[in-house]
Amino acid sequence: MDKIPTSTLKRLPQYLEVLKQFSRAGLKEVSATKISVFADLHQTLVRKDLSYTGISNVPQSGYNIRKLAKAIEDLLNWSDTSSSYLVGVGHLGSALLGYQEFSQRGLNIVGAFDNDTEKIGTTIHGVPVHSLLDITSMAHKQGVHIGIITVPPEAAQLVADLMVHSGIKAIWNFTPHKIHVPSDIIVEYVDMFASLAVLSRRLAEKEAH
Amino acid sequence: MDKIPTSTLKRLPQYLEVLKQFSRAGLKEVSATKISVFADLHQTLVRKDLSYTGISNVPQSGYNIRKLAKAIEDLLNWSDTSSSYLVGVGHLGSALLGYQEFSQRGLNIVGAFDNDTEKIGTTIHGVPVHSLLDITSMAHKQGVHIGIITVPPEAAQLVADLMVHSGIKAIWNFTPHKIHVPSDIIVEYVDMFASLAVLSRRLAEKEAH
Repeated sequence: MDKIPTSTLKRLPQYLEVLKQFSRAGLKEVSATKISVFADLHQTLVRKDLSYTGISNVPQSGYNIRKLAKAIEDLLNWSDTSSSYLVGVGHLGSALLGYQEFSQRGLNIVGAFDNDTEKIGTTIHGVPVHSLLDITSMAHKQGVHIGIITVPPEAAQLVADLMVHSGIKAIWNFTPHKIHVPSDIIVEYVDMFASLAVLSRRLAEKEAH
Repeated sequence: MDKIPTSTLKRLPQYLEVLKQFSRAGLKEVSATKISVFADLHQTLVRKDLSYTGISNVPQSGYNIRKLAKAIEDLLNWSDTSSSYLVGVGHLGSALLGYQEFSQRGLNIVGAFDNDTEKIGTTIHGVPVHSLLDITSMAHKQGVHIGIITVPPEAAQLVADLMVHSGIKAIWNFTPHKIHVPSDIIVEYVDMFASLAVLSRRLAEKEAH
């Protein structure tokens, strides 16, 4: 399996969204030019990114939308369903348990974990909440390899350590806390605060003028 | 007000997290080296980023933690409170209404909007939910300049247009849909799916070996 550059991977979901728009509009084929306009990206970049799919850009007609979307989903492994665990059932964690957009993108949250006895034993959006103490035995039994962290930042490292010990191979960290894990563990951040930092500062700079 | 590079702005919240850790551990001062180890970044980069705060790195002792944290919050305008609106009270939107981490970072969500009559008139985590039809008049009255989009992707552009029409100057878009707005409007994305794309693919590449 070829290694696709991170920058390309990050843009692929955006192409999928654009393709869905065209599909909803009743189109069957679309040119790279049109995709680039809707995605607000340079055409050369779009062509290069989409070349990883192996789908050909036919002169005059362009890409077959259905085939291209399927090929992107295959590249991202979104056609397959991967089981995952979520740790930290606060506001954000609970919301993610009910976020249907994940299951449409191959991510199935099969268990949630918390240390709050009020939450343990309940079911949130159909996902059972277990004690954090059980994560290791359950992960080994269920063969789960993806862990989602939605605990307060100061607990992120502890949870990450537990996940690694439990055989988790990829960690999706929703806290701003930088976690330290062995180099073979895949870590991705959803860093809302990095994004909020840019938004706040740019607005302050603008309003200072 | 000087323009700070985006890459620096994105790292500033991470330094804040690290400083909080040191502060919890009872430290009053910290060296750039120590910060760089905890943030997993190169020391030269850390020094350069932190130079924007104007706080001096004293030989032997390092930075004063309290002063440095305050200076970072000032740079990000997180010491001031900015009012914002959120549009789209689904799972994710509701969760963000209850997310206390935002108010600790200067972002106060003062109103939510939806077009679901079941939700309009209710209060979620203390935030009143209004009809989307009222956003323009309310934004002008309340002088709100920040809008958060948590609707389904296909509705994002419509909501963005409404926000711009309502005098919103900065849009925080939680959908993967690329919105098109006038160039003087600030737009930031929290792109969970870009991050999920990298995570899924890297795991698939790893498991294929």
